[in-house]
Amino acid sequence: MVTNDKFYLSLALNEAWKYQGLTYPNPAVGCAITDKNGALLAVAAHKKAGLPHAELEAAKEALTKLNPLLIFPSEPNELYAFISKNHNNLLKNSTFYVTLEPCSHQGLTPPCAHLVVTLGARKVFIGSLDKTKKAKGGAQILRKSGIEVEEGVLKKECNELLEPFLLWQGGSFSFFKLALRLDGTYDNGIITSHEARVFMHKMRSVCDLIVIGGETLRADNPVLDARLVNGKAPDVLICTTKNIEKNANVFSVKNRKVLVQNSLEFPKKYKNIMIEGGSNFLRAMNGKTDRFLIFHGSDFGLSGSKRIETDLKLKLLYQGCVGNCSFGWHSKVI
Amino acid sequence: MVTNDKFYLSLALNEAWKYQGLTYPNPAVGCAITDKNGALLAVAAHKKAGLPHAELEAAKEALTKLNPLLIFPSEPNELYAFISKNHNNLLKNSTFYVTLEPCSHQGLTPPCAHLVVTLGARKVFIGSLDKTKKAKGGAQILRKSGIEVEEGVLKKECNELLEPFLLWQGGSFSFFKLALRLDGTYDNGIITSHEARVFMHKMRSVCDLIVIGGETLRADNPVLDARLVNGKAPDVLICTTKNIEKNANVFSVKNRKVLVQNSLEFPKKYKNIMIEGGSNFLRAMNGKTDRFLIFHGSDFGLSGSKRIETDLKLKLLYQGCVGNCSFGWHSKVI
Repeated sequence: MVTNDKFYLSLALNEAWKYQGLTYPNPAVGCAITDKNGALLAVAAHKKAGLPHAELEAAKEALTKLNPLLIFPSEPNELYAFISKNHNNLLKNSTFYVTLEPCSHQGLTPPCAHLVVTLGARKVFIGSLDKTKKAKGGAQILRKSGIEVEEGVLKKECNELLEPFLLWQGGSFSFFKLALRLDGTYDNGIITSHEARVFMHKMRSVCDLIVIGGETLRADNPVLDARLVNGKAPDVLICTTKNIEKNANVFSVKNRKVLVQNSLEFPKKYKNIMIEGGSNFLRAMNGKTDRFLIFHGSDFGLSGSKRIETDLKLKLLYQGCVGNCSFGWHSKVI
Repeated sequence: MVTNDKFYLSLALNEAWKYQGLTYPNPAVGCAITDKNGALLAVAAHKKAGLPHAELEAAKEALTKLNPLLIFPSEPNELYAFISKNHNNLLKNSTFYVTLEPCSHQGLTPPCAHLVVTLGARKVFIGSLDKTKKAKGGAQILRKSGIEVEEGVLKKECNELLEPFLLWQGGSFSFFKLALRLDGTYDNGIITSHEARVFMHKMRSVCDLIVIGGETLRADNPVLDARLVNGKAPDVLICTTKNIEKNANVFSVKNRKVLVQNSLEFPKKYKNIMIEGGSNFLRAMNGKTDRFLIFHGSDFGLSGSKRIETDLKLKLLYQGCVGNCSFGWHSKVI
């Protein structure tokens, strides 16, 4: 394996994919840093809105490695200020590898492009350019400060990582989550590991809508909250032509809306939409699904369990592991 | 992610897993090298018996990075001699991260431990110790030459990588290969990508026995050769209680033995054994299978395809991708 600039960016890319689905309304972004001699100092990602951007997180990780005595504040604004003051030129002439152009705007934290300038980086490799009105222009800030910038490294792969963000920015992003056994079976028993279910609850907690069909409601009577991570329960849309049991568990959660409708259209106000269900709902939602997130547990099923029936053909974008499960992000083959 | 010594060894470990099943009769081994300043120079693996050991391959990769003008001979012995003479101290004070203790013996190539000494490494991190009579003692050679050695980093994970080798050294290693669609269906149609099938043919070419059941023979009439890689076709064992069609494709390959028997016992002379089949054979072979190699394609099936029925519970050891497919190496949960 050639350990070149693409390799370092691919480390950042892989790290970012681990948090795909968790960063809404922000994009999934990864960042690696090497020092002036080329030694790897950090591979980090943006993990969640309200936590540091990838560049800030990577800078913290790099400085921790170089000076383990530093004690960093956890609040991102304070962290940004602290690092800007206390970096002590430790990252002078470093190289940054970012999957997305560093932001140029004051959001929850000040612009990442300014941070990279402050730290004295020598070169920045960028995967995707940021074309949002709000945040674009980071590369220009870097160049104006004399930092060498190389754009478009692993562009296709970085664009794939970014696409969910572009979709919800432009309207809405929807993904169908399936949890299957190794043999493709599913039912309302436990299919995936505890770690995988925690991961899915984290995702639920940042979705603003979960969509299910009436069949899932009747068969599983799910709560559809994010209790494993003490997270916010998203609103729920139940698509059904039949009457709904008023005591269903989904109604037991406070501070969430439950919508019941017989059409498959998503209400416009929701931007990050998770679809859960089985075989019939997967087929019904096919045309309205942007991505497929498919977990495979490590057990085989028992006869009598349900199975997916569809002739969908998918493209594997990223394959990861959590607990004893594997999961893949897929797009449709068009 | 902390980019510490464990991280570098994990890069080597992941690289080695990509070649698990292809290195027989040698173990799957990975090696990473960082320079005196900690910059990553190489992440390499032993790819196939007759090709360089991981340390030699990594040294070549590292020297290529440091001096792109070097032209290396491809034959491993010549490569070893060339690197020993022409390293020009470029790897002086480097650090090696190896999943397995460097070998101490003259095999097809001279001992890797001597190479590491010649190159002037400062420190070597070792995952698993080599306990084979023939090759053990590498760490001692390193220490005697003043190289610092740290053993047991990611020991559990490196031992998992090594275990197939230990099994065939001690008698035989068998793995059941399954190729399934995303929904667990299979049949004699094309399930996985061309790249995945090439990968499987490479594995076949280094197996000394493929085992199938009579049901597979009758349903699929497979050739069971390694034609996609122009490789050696392994011997075949057909376990069946019924008569076999004498014109079956499996008999059409020259220079291979086809054994037909009604017991499920593997003949003792075979050490690296690949089992192929479907649901019934998976259950029949359960007690005789050391590992499970499960490919998932990226399509869903069509109604009528076959499905696996077993209640096996597995542990995921490594998850990889090839082409548009994912694959996992699993052990049984005991």
